[in-house]
Amino acid sequence: MTKDIKNFKKFREKMNKIILDTDDKNIKRFFALDNRIYENGALDKKTKELIGLVASTVLRCNDCILYHLDQCYQEKLTDEELYEAINVALIVGGSITIPHIRYIFEMWEQFKKS
Amino acid sequence: MTKDIKNFKKFREKMNKIILDTDDKNIKRFFALDNRIYENGALDKKTKELIGLVASTVLRCNDCILYHLDQCYQEKLTDEELYEAINVALIVGGSITIPHIRYIFEMWEQFKKS
Amino acid sequence: MTKDIKNFKKFREKMNKIILDTDDKNIKRFFALDNRIYENGALDKKTKELIGLVASTVLRCNDCILYHLDQCYQEKLTDEELYEAINVALIVGGSITIPHIRYIFEMWEQFKKS
Amino acid sequence: MTKDIKNFKKFREKMNKIILDTDDKNIKRFFALDNRIYENGALDKKTKELIGLVASTVLRCNDCILYHLDQCYQEKLTDEELYEAINVALIVGGSITIPHIRYIFEMWEQFKKS
Amino acid sequence: MTKDIKNFKKFREKMNKIILDTDDKNIKRFFALDNRIYENGALDKKTKELIGLVASTVLRCNDCILYHLDQCYQEKLTDEELYEAINVALIVGGSITIPHIRYIFEMWEQFKKS
Amino acid sequence: MTKDIKNFKKFREKMNKIILDTDDKNIKRFFALDNRIYENGALDKKTKELIGLVASTVLRCNDCILYHLDQCYQEKLTDEELYEAINVALIVGGSITIPHIRYIFEMWEQFKKS
Repeated sequence: MTKDIKNFKKFREKMNKIILDTDDKNIKRFFALDNRIYENGALDKKTKELIGLVASTVLRCNDCILYHLDQCYQEKLTDEELYEAINVALIVGGSITIPHIRYIFEMWEQFKKS
Repeated sequence: MTKDIKNFKKFREKMNKIILDTDDKNIKRFFALDNRIYENGALDKKTKELIGLVASTVLRCNDCILYHLDQCYQEKLTDEELYEAINVALIVGGSITIPHIRYIFEMWEQFKKS
Repeated sequence: MTKDIKNFKKFREKMNKIILDTDDKNIKRFFALDNRIYENGALDKKTKELIGLVASTVLRCNDCILYHLDQCYQEKLTDEELYEAINVALIVGGSITIPHIRYIFEMWEQFKKS
Repeated sequence: MTKDIKNFKKFREKMNKIILDTDDKNIKRFFALDNRIYENGALDKKTKELIGLVASTVLRCNDCILYHLDQCYQEKLTDEELYEAINVALIVGGSITIPHIRYIFEMWEQFKKS
Repeated sequence: MTKDIKNFKKFREKMNKIILDTDDKNIKRFFALDNRIYENGALDKKTKELIGLVASTVLRCNDCILYHLDQCYQEKLTDEELYEAINVALIVGGSITIPHIRYIFEMWEQFKKS
Repeated sequence: MTKDIKNFKKFREKMNKIILDTDDKNIKRFFALDNRIYENGALDKKTKELIGLVASTVLRCNDCILYHLDQCYQEKLTDEELYEAINVALIVGGSITIPHIRYIFEMWEQFKKS
């Protein structure tokens, strides 16, 4: 795995630990629910993570993009599936999403090299 | 089909005709591309429309929701698949999406009755 | 209570019942958490509802505004407190929030008359 | 002028009067500044209102759109200028802006008929 | 004070000076109003800054978050008050706010160490 | 040209090449349309780029801002025209746009020095 992605994961893990260590019950419940929602069900995990990726792209959040892209990569998303999902994000969200689409391509290369 | 959905479709069709009758080439190109992107490919139309539905929900646009929900209905989306997609929209977009999720449930009932 | 607010509450209640009757556990969990978060704690309910009102205003969601405004009214928010919270929403969110601020004033009058 | 636009203007005027009658100085200052900014200067009023129209479209606020469209109409914006500005809104903001672009076309017809 | 926060403050101060030195009267008026709105009134400064913090979080602007968090820190906001305000931001704005909530926790640690 | 702008341009060019090399036809069509829309027409290129700049500012995308600012600079936009366009972005989009307005000023200085 390349250094950028490793660093993001390390920072994410460290901060999530700090957040969950506060013992604030509502934050814990939200984080638990956030994990549960992407589990296999009527829709499989891959489809849900892909939906999460497009939602993150039209809302323009790079950290959320990286998280879902990683999940999609682990679920064996193909290049063509990724491009078609990006098409939807681009047409719905407009050119304002292009910098985030550049980011998706940049990180996707990193996952494939890793 | 119930009256609400019929009215929306009629208004949508009428306005799209007015817009495309202006002979503005760039608008025509955008609208053509907007149709092409949801066609069957590496991802099937149903998955793409479902992605479009969640993107519309987190961006909170009822007219866009109704359009994609109609497409999902025609693609035989099941109740359980819809609920799980809504879960992703709700967790990603937060309680601010709830009024739009109420709208999805309201319109879904109408499609099923029609 | 005036008719507009009554209708909104009836629709809201009816749709929430339909949503929760689906027995989708994740939606139930989200809705339960959404209620819990505004309870008295280190911050009192009034302050939390006021924060919810401003968040709904800058995110420009009238249904969310009406819900939190109702809660604020029940928590005895004064006119002056409301105006100062609106000031923050207006300066942070810009003139794009003005239609929603008109809505707050319109509904506030209705709550005070009811 | 058609009835829809007249009603909007009447409601807008009535609510702005209520808001400004509260004697909240900061709201008054914001509203005054909001008017001042669109006056003729290095950029003429027509260009500024057109910029305001596109900003309102990508932020997806129909009331703001109607206000700026009215100003553009009074400043003798041509159809072709309007269509090209809409092109920018559509490409930047994506298909999520289409319902608002339908609204612009619908209202523009009303202004031209009035 | 840690280096990150110091750097941000220095950059912010430098750029605000450049902006205000342009002698553009409308920008000056906006900046003046932006300061005035958070002063003690019917709501105290602490509550207003906390509202500003949550508004900045749901609108997902880290620089705005850092500014209001600093003000909250100076107004002696407690950890528990901060967590409960974050709860509201998280439930209203959804998981898309989580990277900004990580940032709040990271910076809050820095303020407390400083 | 300063190093920051040069780096951005190089990264942008490199990533766009990677994206267009995928041979995904819909992305190519979107990118082609995105270029065509800003060409001289009923509105001149300078006005369109200025509209694109303000749209990018209220939607808060620094990469989009830098692109349009560069185009505006090449179209000989004056300081006063820039300030007045910024005024519209600031009043419409609110204080949440201020970090992006700081960025505009910072980059504008760099273009003028280059």
